[in-house]
Amino acid sequence: LYTREEVGRHRSPRDRIWVTHGTEVFDVTDFVELHPGGADKLLLAAGGALEPFWALYAVHNQPHVLELLREYKVGELRPEEALPAPAPFAGAPPRPPGLRVNSQKPFNAEPPAELLAERFLTPNELFFTRNHLPVPAVDPGSYRLRVEGPGGRALSLSLAELRSRFPKHEVTATLQCAGNRRAEMSRVRPVKGLAWDIGAISTARWGGARLRDVLLHAGFGEEREGEWHVCFEGLDTDAGGAPYGASIAYGRAVSPAADVLLAYEMNGEELPRDHGFPLRVVVPGVVGARSVKWLRRVAVSPAESPSHWQQNDYKGFSPSVDWDTVDYSAAPAIQELPVQSAITHPRPGAAVPAGELTVKGYAWSGGGREVVRVDVSLDGGRTWRVARLTGERPAPLEAPVAAGAELEIVCKAVDRSYNVQPDSVAPIWNLRGVLSNAWHRVRVTVS
Amino acid sequence: LYTREEVGRHRSPRDRIWVTHGTEVFDVTDFVELHPGGADKLLLAAGGALEPFWALYAVHNQPHVLELLREYKVGELRPEEALPAPAPFAGAPPRPPGLRVNSQKPFNAEPPAELLAERFLTPNELFFTRNHLPVPAVDPGSYRLRVEGPGGRALSLSLAELRSRFPKHEVTATLQCAGNRRAEMSRVRPVKGLAWDIGAISTARWGGARLRDVLLHAGFGEEREGEWHVCFEGLDTDAGGAPYGASIAYGRAVSPAADVLLAYEMNGEELPRDHGFPLRVVVPGVVGARSVKWLRRVAVSPAESPSHWQQNDYKGFSPSVDWDTVDYSAAPAIQELPVQSAITHPRPGAAVPAGELTVKGYAWSGGGREVVRVDVSLDGGRTWRVARLTGERPAPLEAPVAAGAELEIVCKAVDRSYNVQPDSVAPIWNLRGVLSNAWHRVRVTVS
Repeated sequence: LYTREEVGRHRSPRDRIWVTHGTEVFDVTDFVELHPGGADKLLLAAGGALEPFWALYAVHNQPHVLELLREYKVGELRPEEALPAPAPFAGAPPRPPGLRVNSQKPFNAEPPAELLAERFLTPNELFFTRNHLPVPAVDPGSYRLRVEGPGGRALSLSLAELRSRFPKHEVTATLQCAGNRRAEMSRVRPVKGLAWDIGAISTARWGGARLRDVLLHAGFGEEREGEWHVCFEGLDTDAGGAPYGASIAYGRAVSPAADVLLAYEMNGEELPRDHGFPLRVVVPGVVGARSVKWLRRVAVSPAESPSHWQQNDYKGFSPSVDWDTVDYSAAPAIQELPVQSAITHPRPGAAVPAGELTVKGYAWSGGGREVVRVDVSLDGGRTWRVARLTGERPAPLEAPVAAGAELEIVCKAVDRSYNVQPDSVAPIWNLRGVLSNAWHRVRVTVS
Repeated sequence: LYTREEVGRHRSPRDRIWVTHGTEVFDVTDFVELHPGGADKLLLAAGGALEPFWALYAVHNQPHVLELLREYKVGELRPEEALPAPAPFAGAPPRPPGLRVNSQKPFNAEPPAELLAERFLTPNELFFTRNHLPVPAVDPGSYRLRVEGPGGRALSLSLAELRSRFPKHEVTATLQCAGNRRAEMSRVRPVKGLAWDIGAISTARWGGARLRDVLLHAGFGEEREGEWHVCFEGLDTDAGGAPYGASIAYGRAVSPAADVLLAYEMNGEELPRDHGFPLRVVVPGVVGARSVKWLRRVAVSPAESPSHWQQNDYKGFSPSVDWDTVDYSAAPAIQELPVQSAITHPRPGAAVPAGELTVKGYAWSGGGREVVRVDVSLDGGRTWRVARLTGERPAPLEAPVAAGAELEIVCKAVDRSYNVQPDSVAPIWNLRGVLSNAWHRVRVTVS
């Protein structure tokens, strides 16, 4: 009988490589080199559970795979360890293993970059988690959503009412944190914020009521004179009791094309607690910070959300602005995000074999602007070739490379409005390290 | 009595500096240094007519200005020269002087860069002209616009009907040619197309019927199942009789927010012939090529316009694509344009006086995305300062500069979706030289 901590110490061939599946513990050291999907993929799970990775690679869902695994069984998890250890915040949900944790309190974690481009939809267990405050524990039975504002009637909706009164609408949407790729910006000059690598972006199939339908049901019209906003408040609160909050423009909230959801489902399951159980906003094409989780209140208002995160955070500034000169009122709150792309394979510093090099990555743009092209360079941006884009199917770029070469692989995407990514990080550097969307560069050696 | 050609030979102090106003000819050589607006401004009109420049600087519209000018009178234009010489295309309209001509057949010309940022609205005489084919001569009395397509009733509308049946709607909108700033792209590698400097962009107040209103009047609905387009045909035709054509998405055509006009007015006047008399489309936020002039037909269609300019031109490609490999079906037709900016003052190679340097320019973005910030650098992009943006009022950036310095002035804009301009031209180079929106760089010396 082992604890998870004991399993977690076995992460290299020297210490032996252990993994868990359910409550069983396996020593797969001797299998690593035999793994049909490659040793590197199996090593991602070293010291932890296999399930999040098997969720990505459906080929494992066959009886003979588990049979083969059982040949390597060395024991069982202790009964009290059947679920992952409770996280430091009291009452925090169990966290799936396999995430790269950037902060525990509040919990912020991203999937390993290698896995992001393996599937179009990110499994819930690997979806990046961006919490600003402790995760609230919500009783779904007594939960109510309040909807209010001038010109409408106040509503108090139970989950059952949200599900029954409004058609269920499903939307595949990517959420990205404004701080995605902040680590690259920090290398230019220090910035304030979590050191996200390229994984603060994930895609899910969301299901729920359209915000539009709820607002029209409450008597708010298709159009409003002047500038109006829809403000969201979460059940997560800071030490002083102030809730997390954010807002979007009224026009986006009621637009049929904008597909803004009050979501209760994520990839066909109930929302996980870390992703807003029982109800969250999903605003496609807009910075993740506006997709408020654990939603308690929707308010139509002539002003943007007064919250810290709308007024004094999540805004972009010139590289010349520092903490002495920053004026948050001078910049608009980030809503739609600019075009973005990154290389998920190979990883920086990797030694890749000579012959056919496979490059994989992701590309996305805000505001519903589809990606129309991705250019990839193997020589730091001097020459380019065009990656295949096949939507939901993976479309790696393949190119011959010679042994001994040092490559600087670069990618840059173009969106439907022909916006492009900037060449370099320094000119878009900003004190909060947001909007980091320069060309992504990965140096590798060919062996 | 002089010809315009004779006047045009007097463009420097050595040859004397002549200008015209109405039919009068003046030798203003001795006045140049006394000109209250600066010698450089007056020299822009050297050898030509004063009127387009006086349209920009309203201060000239006072009786004493003309009185003062008459002190320098040296003669009159020959009677047959009272209007500018007929252009090479038979039946072409008279062209206002003051434009920088890129091609005569068809006529393509841009305003001098220095003048672009002087006024928010570009006077009609200075508005850039992009003609693909000879300018048709249209009799407004017999003119009819045809509107047709499946699901609607065919209309044939006279100008009087367009004016009386539909509310007049006014929109201030900037049009930009996809080839604006192509000259900079040509310096990386040759491209095919007119060598536009930074002036293939202009702003006017347009007046006309909303395309939305006309389509709804013809019985086309607010929404259509599937992908639909609105195709436009001009009265300008090629040697084989094929009209200029282009299309936009149906959703944009009927969107109240997109403000697509069938315009019969430009800055409060009838459309000039070079700008589409008697009726043109104006699609705000979209490449100028879709704002079809001399409009003869509007057709709702399940396919984009079959015209050359929609299918095999006005598309963006990777720098790796050349004329042997280009596949026009692989790229979407340009619609919304990316964020853009350029420096209009000082001009490249200028010697500027030590002391306070004034930098002026323009910034704009497509798709209705407002410009939220412009960063300006005096050192090639190493350090930045933020320009003042005051909308319609000019907002030059001022900075102290020391004698002897060599400056590389750079500007880059940020739009409401926080899209930015790319750092350099080579990575966005494309064989047609479109979408040239890298940072604008101007080298000057301080004397």
